[in-house]
Amino acid sequence: MVAERLERQINFVIEIDKLKSVLRQTILVDKSKRENSAEHSWHIAVMAILFSEYARESDVDILKVIKMALIHDLVEIDAGDTYCYDEKGTLDQSEREEKGAKRIFGILPEDQAREFEGLWREFEEGKTAEARFAAALDRVQPLINNYNTGGEMWREHGIKSGQVVRRNSVVNEGAPVLWEYTSQLISDAVKRGMLQE
Amino acid sequence: MVAERLERQINFVIEIDKLKSVLRQTILVDKSKRENSAEHSWHIAVMAILFSEYARESDVDILKVIKMALIHDLVEIDAGDTYCYDEKGTLDQSEREEKGAKRIFGILPEDQAREFEGLWREFEEGKTAEARFAAALDRVQPLINNYNTGGEMWREHGIKSGQVVRRNSVVNEGAPVLWEYTSQLISDAVKRGMLQE
Repeated sequence: MVAERLERQINFVIEIDKLKSVLRQTILVDKSKRENSAEHSWHIAVMAILFSEYARESDVDILKVIKMALIHDLVEIDAGDTYCYDEKGTLDQSEREEKGAKRIFGILPEDQAREFEGLWREFEEGKTAEARFAAALDRVQPLINNYNTGGEMWREHGIKSGQVVRRNSVVNEGAPVLWEYTSQLISDAVKRGMLQE
Repeated sequence: MVAERLERQINFVIEIDKLKSVLRQTILVDKSKRENSAEHSWHIAVMAILFSEYARESDVDILKVIKMALIHDLVEIDAGDTYCYDEKGTLDQSEREEKGAKRIFGILPEDQAREFEGLWREFEEGKTAEARFAAALDRVQPLINNYNTGGEMWREHGIKSGQVVRRNSVVNEGAPVLWEYTSQLISDAVKRGMLQE
Protein backbone atom coordinates (compact mmCIF):
# COMPACT_ATOMS: atom_id res chain seq x y z
CA MET A 1 0.00 0.00 0.00
CA VAL A 2 2.97 2.31 0.62
CA ALA A 3 5.03 3.59 -2.30
CA GLU A 4 8.43 1.91 -2.57
CA ARG A 5 10.23 5.22 -2.09
CA LEU A 6 8.47 5.99 1.19
CA GLU A 7 8.95 2.41 2.33
CA ARG A 8 12.71 2.68 1.88
CA GLN A 9 12.76 5.97 3.74
CA ILE A 10 10.76 4.50 6.63
CA ASN A 11 13.07 1.48 6.74
CA PHE A 12 15.97 3.89 7.06
CA VAL A 13 14.25 5.74 9.92
CA ILE A 14 13.84 2.40 11.70
CA GLU A 15 17.42 1.31 10.97
CA ILE A 16 19.08 4.44 12.33
CA ASP A 17 17.30 3.99 15.66
CA LYS A 18 20.23 1.64 16.37
CA LEU A 19 22.68 4.57 16.61
CA LYS A 20 21.12 5.26 20.03
CA SER A 21 22.80 2.06 21.26
CA VAL A 22 26.31 2.67 19.90
CA LEU A 23 28.27 3.67 22.99
CA ARG A 24 31.21 6.08 22.89
CA GLN A 25 34.07 6.52 25.36
CA THR A 26 32.82 9.97 26.38
CA ILE A 27 30.66 10.21 29.48
CA LEU A 28 28.01 12.79 30.30
CA VAL A 29 29.07 15.87 32.25
CA ASP A 30 27.14 14.58 35.28
CA LYS A 31 29.02 11.23 34.93
CA SER A 32 25.71 9.29 34.96
CA LYS A 33 26.46 7.22 31.84
CA ARG A 34 28.48 6.93 28.65
CA GLU A 35 27.00 8.87 25.78
CA ASN A 36 25.95 7.22 22.55
CA SER A 37 26.58 8.32 18.98
CA ALA A 38 23.03 9.65 18.43
CA GLU A 39 23.36 11.94 21.45
CA HIS A 40 26.82 13.04 20.32
CA SER A 41 25.55 13.77 16.80
CA TRP A 42 22.71 15.86 18.23
CA HIS A 43 25.11 17.77 20.46
CA ILE A 44 27.49 18.76 17.66
CA ALA A 45 24.58 19.66 15.35
CA VAL A 46 23.40 22.19 17.96
CA MET A 47 27.00 23.41 18.27
CA ALA A 48 27.08 23.97 14.50
CA ILE A 49 24.27 26.53 14.93
CA LEU A 50 25.81 28.04 18.05
CA PHE A 51 29.39 28.34 16.81
CA SER A 52 28.82 29.17 13.12
CA GLU A 53 30.50 32.56 13.70
CA TYR A 54 33.79 30.77 14.49
CA ALA A 55 34.08 28.76 11.26
CA ARG A 56 37.42 29.57 9.64
CA GLU A 57 35.82 30.26 6.29
CA SER A 58 33.11 32.87 6.59
CA ASP A 59 30.91 31.58 3.78
CA VAL A 60 30.52 28.08 5.23
CA ASP A 61 27.18 26.40 4.37
CA ILE A 62 25.73 25.72 7.84
CA LEU A 63 22.90 23.51 6.56
CA LYS A 64 25.52 21.21 5.06
CA VAL A 65 27.58 21.24 8.26
CA ILE A 66 24.51 20.28 10.30
CA LYS A 67 23.63 17.49 7.87
CA MET A 68 27.17 16.12 8.20
CA ALA A 69 26.99 16.36 11.99
CA LEU A 70 23.71 14.46 12.02
CA ILE A 71 24.79 11.57 9.79
CA HIS A 72 28.60 11.35 10.17
CA ASP A 73 28.41 8.47 12.67
CA LEU A 74 25.67 6.34 11.07
CA VAL A 75 28.27 3.89 9.71
CA GLU A 76 29.01 2.99 13.35
CA ILE A 77 25.75 1.04 13.44
CA ASP A 78 27.77 -1.66 11.66
CA ALA A 79 31.35 -0.62 12.41
CA GLY A 80 30.93 0.33 16.08
CA ASP A 81 32.52 3.41 17.62
CA THR A 82 36.31 3.25 17.38
CA TYR A 83 38.01 5.04 20.27
CA CYS A 84 40.30 7.61 18.69
CA TYR A 85 43.25 6.54 20.89
CA ASP A 86 42.80 2.83 20.13
CA GLU A 87 45.70 2.15 17.72
CA LYS A 88 44.58 -1.38 16.92
CA GLY A 89 40.95 -0.44 16.36
CA THR A 90 41.81 2.36 13.97
CA LEU A 91 43.78 -0.02 11.70
CA ASP A 92 40.74 -1.52 9.96
CA GLN A 93 38.34 1.27 10.89
CA SER A 94 37.92 2.72 7.40
CA GLU A 95 37.32 -0.71 5.86
CA ARG A 96 34.61 -1.49 8.42
CA GLU A 97 33.05 1.91 7.94
CA GLU A 98 33.04 1.65 4.14
CA LYS A 99 31.07 -1.57 4.37
CA GLY A 100 28.67 0.04 6.85
CA ALA A 101 28.13 3.00 4.54
CA LYS A 102 27.26 0.75 1.60
CA ARG A 103 24.68 -1.21 3.57
CA ILE A 104 23.11 1.57 5.64
CA PHE A 105 22.87 4.32 3.01
CA GLY A 106 21.87 1.61 0.52
CA ILE A 107 18.55 1.28 2.34
CA LEU A 108 17.57 4.73 1.01
CA PRO A 109 16.10 5.59 -2.42
CA GLU A 110 19.01 5.97 -4.84
CA ASP A 111 19.15 9.78 -4.96
CA GLN A 112 19.15 10.06 -1.17
CA ALA A 113 21.64 7.22 -0.79
CA ARG A 114 23.95 9.25 -3.03
CA GLU A 115 23.35 12.46 -1.03
CA PHE A 116 23.92 10.85 2.37
CA GLU A 117 26.94 8.82 1.31
CA GLY A 118 28.35 11.92 -0.34
CA LEU A 119 27.98 13.95 2.86
CA TRP A 120 29.59 11.19 4.90
CA ARG A 121 32.51 10.87 2.47
CA GLU A 122 33.01 14.64 2.34
CA PHE A 123 33.16 14.71 6.14
CA GLU A 124 35.68 11.86 6.19
CA GLU A 125 37.92 13.41 3.55
CA GLY A 126 37.96 16.80 5.30
CA LYS A 127 38.77 18.75 2.15
CA THR A 128 35.96 21.32 2.21
CA ALA A 129 35.33 24.21 4.61
CA GLU A 130 32.14 22.49 5.78
CA ALA A 131 33.90 19.18 6.49
CA ARG A 132 36.67 20.93 8.43
CA PHE A 133 34.23 22.92 10.53
CA ALA A 134 32.14 19.80 11.25
CA ALA A 135 35.32 17.90 12.20
CA ALA A 136 36.28 20.70 14.62
CA LEU A 137 32.92 20.37 16.39
CA ASP A 138 33.28 16.58 16.43
CA ARG A 139 36.54 16.99 18.39
CA VAL A 140 35.55 19.87 20.66
CA GLN A 141 32.40 18.30 22.13
CA PRO A 142 34.05 15.22 23.73
CA LEU A 143 36.89 17.47 24.92
CA ILE A 144 34.42 19.75 26.71
CA ASN A 145 32.68 16.74 28.23
CA ASN A 146 35.94 15.10 29.30
CA TYR A 147 37.30 18.27 30.85
CA ASN A 148 34.07 18.87 32.76
CA THR A 149 34.06 15.39 34.27
CA GLY A 150 37.55 16.01 35.65
CA GLY A 151 39.10 13.99 32.81
CA GLU A 152 37.46 10.73 33.90
CA MET A 153 38.02 8.87 30.60
CA TRP A 154 41.49 10.35 30.02
CA ARG A 155 42.59 9.07 33.41
CA GLU A 156 41.00 5.67 32.85
CA HIS A 157 42.84 5.19 29.54
CA GLY A 158 46.06 6.93 30.66
CA ILE A 159 45.90 9.42 27.79
CA LYS A 160 48.81 11.85 27.33
CA SER A 161 48.43 15.54 26.46
CA GLY A 162 50.44 15.06 23.24
CA GLN A 163 47.86 12.55 22.00
CA VAL A 164 45.04 14.99 22.69
CA VAL A 165 46.87 17.86 20.99
CA ARG A 166 47.56 15.75 17.88
CA ARG A 167 43.98 14.49 17.76
CA ASN A 168 42.55 17.97 18.14
CA SER A 169 44.84 20.02 15.95
CA VAL A 170 42.26 19.71 13.16
CA VAL A 171 40.11 22.05 15.27
CA ASN A 172 42.47 24.81 14.20
CA GLU A 173 41.75 24.09 10.55
CA GLY A 174 38.00 24.37 11.06
CA ALA A 175 37.58 26.92 13.84
CA PRO A 176 40.68 28.80 15.12
CA VAL A 177 38.83 30.47 18.03
CA LEU A 178 37.70 27.08 19.29
CA TRP A 179 41.22 25.74 18.89
CA GLU A 180 42.55 28.55 21.08
CA TYR A 181 39.92 27.64 23.66
CA THR A 182 40.63 23.90 23.54
CA SER A 183 44.39 24.52 23.81
CA GLN A 184 43.74 26.34 27.08
CA LEU A 185 41.57 23.45 28.28
CA ILE A 186 44.29 20.93 27.46
CA SER A 187 46.99 22.93 29.29
CA ASP A 188 44.72 23.32 32.26
CA ALA A 189 43.88 19.59 32.19
CA VAL A 190 47.60 18.80 32.42
CA LYS A 191 48.03 21.24 35.32
CA ARG A 192 45.16 19.62 37.19
CA GLY A 193 46.44 16.11 36.56
CA MET A 194 43.56 15.05 34.33
CA LEU A 195 45.97 14.39 31.48
CA GLN A 196 49.51 12.99 31.60
CA GLU A 197 52.23 15.23 30.22
CA MET B 1 40.94 34.49 29.57
CA VAL B 2 37.92 33.49 27.48
CA ALA B 3 35.70 36.20 26.02
CA GLU B 4 32.37 36.48 27.79
CA ARG B 5 30.46 35.62 24.61
CA LEU B 6 32.32 32.34 24.11
CA GLU B 7 32.04 31.54 27.81
CA ARG B 8 28.23 31.82 27.67
CA GLN B 9 28.15 29.64 24.56
CA ILE B 10 30.33 27.00 26.22
CA ASN B 11 28.15 27.09 29.35
CA PHE B 12 25.17 26.43 27.10
CA VAL B 13 26.94 23.46 25.47
CA ILE B 14 27.56 22.05 28.95
CA GLU B 15 24.00 22.76 30.12
CA ILE B 16 22.26 21.02 27.22
CA ASP B 17 24.21 17.81 27.91
CA LYS B 18 21.40 17.22 30.44
CA LEU B 19 18.86 16.61 27.67
CA LYS B 20 20.53 13.19 27.25
CA SER B 21 19.05 12.24 30.62
CA VAL B 22 15.45 13.39 30.02
CA LEU B 23 13.58 10.14 29.42
CA ARG B 24 10.55 9.88 27.12
CA GLN B 25 7.79 7.28 27.08
CA THR B 26 8.94 5.96 23.69
CA ILE B 27 11.22 2.93 23.66
CA LEU B 28 13.80 1.96 21.07
CA VAL B 29 12.71 -0.32 18.24
CA ASP B 30 14.83 -3.13 19.74
CA LYS B 31 13.05 -2.51 23.11
CA SER B 32 16.43 -2.23 24.89
CA LYS B 33 15.62 1.06 26.68
CA ARG B 34 13.48 4.19 26.75
CA GLU B 35 14.77 6.90 24.47
CA ASN B 36 15.74 10.33 25.75
CA SER B 37 14.92 13.73 24.34
CA ALA B 38 18.38 14.29 22.82
CA GLU B 39 18.10 11.04 20.84
CA HIS B 40 14.55 11.92 19.79
CA SER B 41 15.64 15.40 18.65
CA TRP B 42 18.45 13.89 16.59
CA HIS B 43 16.09 11.37 15.03
CA ILE B 44 13.55 13.95 13.87
CA ALA B 45 16.33 16.27 12.61
CA VAL B 46 17.50 13.47 10.31
CA MET B 47 13.88 12.90 9.28
CA ALA B 48 13.63 16.59 8.35
CA ILE B 49 16.34 16.02 5.73
CA LEU B 50 14.89 12.71 4.61
CA PHE B 51 11.24 13.77 4.33
CA SER B 52 11.61 17.36 3.12
CA GLU B 53 9.84 16.41 -0.12
CA TYR B 54 6.66 15.66 1.86
CA ALA B 55 6.30 19.05 3.56
CA ARG B 56 2.86 20.45 2.74
CA GLU B 57 4.29 23.78 1.67
CA SER B 58 6.89 23.31 -1.03
CA ASP B 59 9.04 26.33 -0.12
CA VAL B 60 9.62 25.23 3.49
CA ASP B 61 12.99 26.39 4.92
CA ILE B 62 14.62 23.08 5.88
CA LEU B 63 17.47 24.69 7.83
CA LYS B 64 14.88 26.32 10.09
CA VAL B 65 12.96 23.04 10.46
CA ILE B 66 16.15 21.23 11.48
CA LYS B 67 17.04 23.96 13.99
CA MET B 68 13.56 23.63 15.53
CA ALA B 69 13.90 19.85 15.66
CA LEU B 70 17.25 20.14 17.42
CA ILE B 71 16.18 22.60 20.11
CA HIS B 72 12.40 22.10 20.53
CA ASP B 73 12.80 19.91 23.63
CA LEU B 74 15.57 21.82 25.48
CA VAL B 75 13.00 23.32 27.89
CA GLU B 76 12.46 19.76 29.16
CA ILE B 77 15.79 19.99 30.99
CA ASP B 78 13.81 21.94 33.59
CA ALA B 79 10.23 20.96 32.77
CA GLY B 80 10.75 17.23 32.17
CA ASP B 81 9.12 15.32 29.33
CA THR B 82 5.34 15.43 29.61
CA TYR B 83 3.70 12.31 28.19
CA CYS B 84 1.23 13.54 25.59
CA TYR B 85 -1.57 11.34 26.97
CA ASP B 86 -1.02 12.47 30.57
CA GLU B 87 -3.99 14.84 31.13
CA LYS B 88 -2.80 16.03 34.52
CA GLY B 89 0.79 16.64 33.40
CA THR B 90 -0.28 18.69 30.38
CA LEU B 91 -2.26 21.12 32.61
CA ASP B 92 0.76 23.12 33.80
CA GLN B 93 3.11 22.00 31.02
CA SER B 94 3.32 25.34 29.23
CA GLU B 95 3.97 27.25 32.47
CA ARG B 96 6.82 24.89 33.38
CA GLU B 97 8.24 25.09 29.87
CA GLU B 98 8.08 28.91 29.75
CA LYS B 99 10.19 29.07 32.91
CA GLY B 100 12.63 26.53 31.47
CA ALA B 101 12.95 28.54 28.25
CA LYS B 102 13.78 31.74 30.15
CA ARG B 103 16.51 30.08 32.20
CA ILE B 104 18.07 27.81 29.57
CA PHE B 105 18.08 30.14 26.56
CA GLY B 106 19.08 32.93 28.98
CA ILE B 107 22.49 31.27 29.34
CA LEU B 108 23.28 32.30 25.74
CA PRO B 109 24.55 35.66 24.48
CA GLU B 110 21.53 37.92 23.98
CA ASP B 111 21.26 37.66 20.19
CA GLN B 112 21.41 33.87 20.28
CA ALA B 113 19.04 33.67 23.25
CA ARG B 114 16.54 35.59 21.11
CA GLU B 115 17.12 33.33 18.09
CA PHE B 116 16.77 30.07 20.06
CA GLU B 117 13.78 31.22 22.10
CA GLY B 118 12.17 32.50 18.90
CA LEU B 119 12.61 29.13 17.20
CA TRP B 120 11.19 27.31 20.21
CA ARG B 121 8.19 29.65 20.41
CA GLU B 122 7.54 29.38 16.67
CA PHE B 123 7.55 25.60 16.98
CA GLU B 124 5.15 25.72 19.94
CA GLU B 125 2.73 28.11 18.22
CA GLY B 126 2.64 26.04 15.04
CA LYS B 127 1.62 28.92 12.82
CA THR B 128 4.33 28.72 10.15
CA ALA B 129 4.96 26.08 7.48
CA GLU B 130 8.26 25.21 9.18
CA ALA B 131 6.66 24.76 12.60
CA ARG B 132 3.91 22.55 11.18
CA PHE B 133 6.35 20.35 9.30
CA ALA B 134 8.59 20.04 12.38
CA ALA B 135 5.53 19.16 14.50
CA ALA B 136 4.57 16.45 12.01
CA LEU B 137 8.00 14.84 12.36
CA ASP B 138 7.81 15.17 16.15
CA ARG B 139 4.61 13.06 16.07
CA VAL B 140 5.59 10.54 13.38
CA GLN B 141 8.86 9.38 14.97
CA PRO B 142 7.40 8.02 18.25
CA LEU B 143 4.54 6.51 16.26
CA ILE B 144 6.98 4.60 14.06
CA ASN B 145 8.90 3.45 17.13
CA ASN B 146 5.76 2.43 19.01
CA TYR B 147 4.34 0.51 16.08
CA ASN B 148 7.62 -1.32 15.52
CA THR B 149 7.84 -2.48 19.13
CA GLY B 150 4.39 -4.05 18.80
CA GLY B 151 2.79 -1.08 20.58
CA GLU B 152 4.58 -1.78 23.88
CA MET B 153 3.98 1.67 25.41
CA TRP B 154 0.43 1.98 24.03
CA ARG B 155 -0.48 -1.31 25.70
CA GLU B 156 1.21 -0.36 28.96
CA HIS B 157 -0.75 2.90 29.17
CA GLY B 158 -4.00 1.49 27.70
CA ILE B 159 -4.04 4.08 24.93
CA LYS B 160 -7.05 4.21 22.58
CA SER B 161 -6.86 4.71 18.82
CA GLY B 162 -8.99 7.88 19.07
CA GLN B 163 -6.36 9.48 21.31
CA VAL B 164 -3.62 8.65 18.84
CA VAL B 165 -5.64 9.98 15.89
CA ARG B 166 -6.39 13.25 17.70
CA ARG B 167 -2.77 13.65 18.81
CA ASN B 168 -1.45 12.97 15.33
CA SER B 169 -3.91 14.86 13.17
CA VAL B 170 -1.42 17.74 13.10
CA VAL B 171 0.72 15.50 10.90
CA ASN B 172 -1.80 16.20 8.13
CA GLU B 173 -1.21 19.93 8.46
CA GLY B 174 2.55 19.53 8.08
CA ALA B 175 2.99 16.52 5.80
CA PRO B 176 -0.12 14.96 4.19
CA VAL B 177 1.78 11.98 2.73
CA LEU B 178 3.11 11.10 6.18
CA TRP B 179 -0.39 11.51 7.62
CA GLU B 180 -1.72 8.98 5.11
CA TYR B 181 1.05 6.61 6.15
CA THR B 182 0.49 7.08 9.88
CA SER B 183 -3.28 6.60 9.45
CA GLN B 184 -2.55 3.20 7.95
CA LEU B 185 -0.21 2.37 10.85
CA ILE B 186 -2.88 3.33 13.39
CA SER B 187 -5.57 1.22 11.68
CA ASP B 188 -3.20 -1.68 11.51
CA ALA B 189 -2.20 -1.22 15.17
CA VAL B 190 -5.88 -1.52 16.13
CA LYS B 191 -6.30 -4.66 14.01
CA ARG B 192 -3.28 -6.23 15.69
CA GLY B 193 -4.45 -5.31 19.17
CA MET B 194 -1.62 -2.86 19.89
CA LEU B 195 -4.15 -0.06 20.35
CA GLN B 196 -7.61 -0.20 21.91
CA GLU B 197 -10.45 0.88 19.64
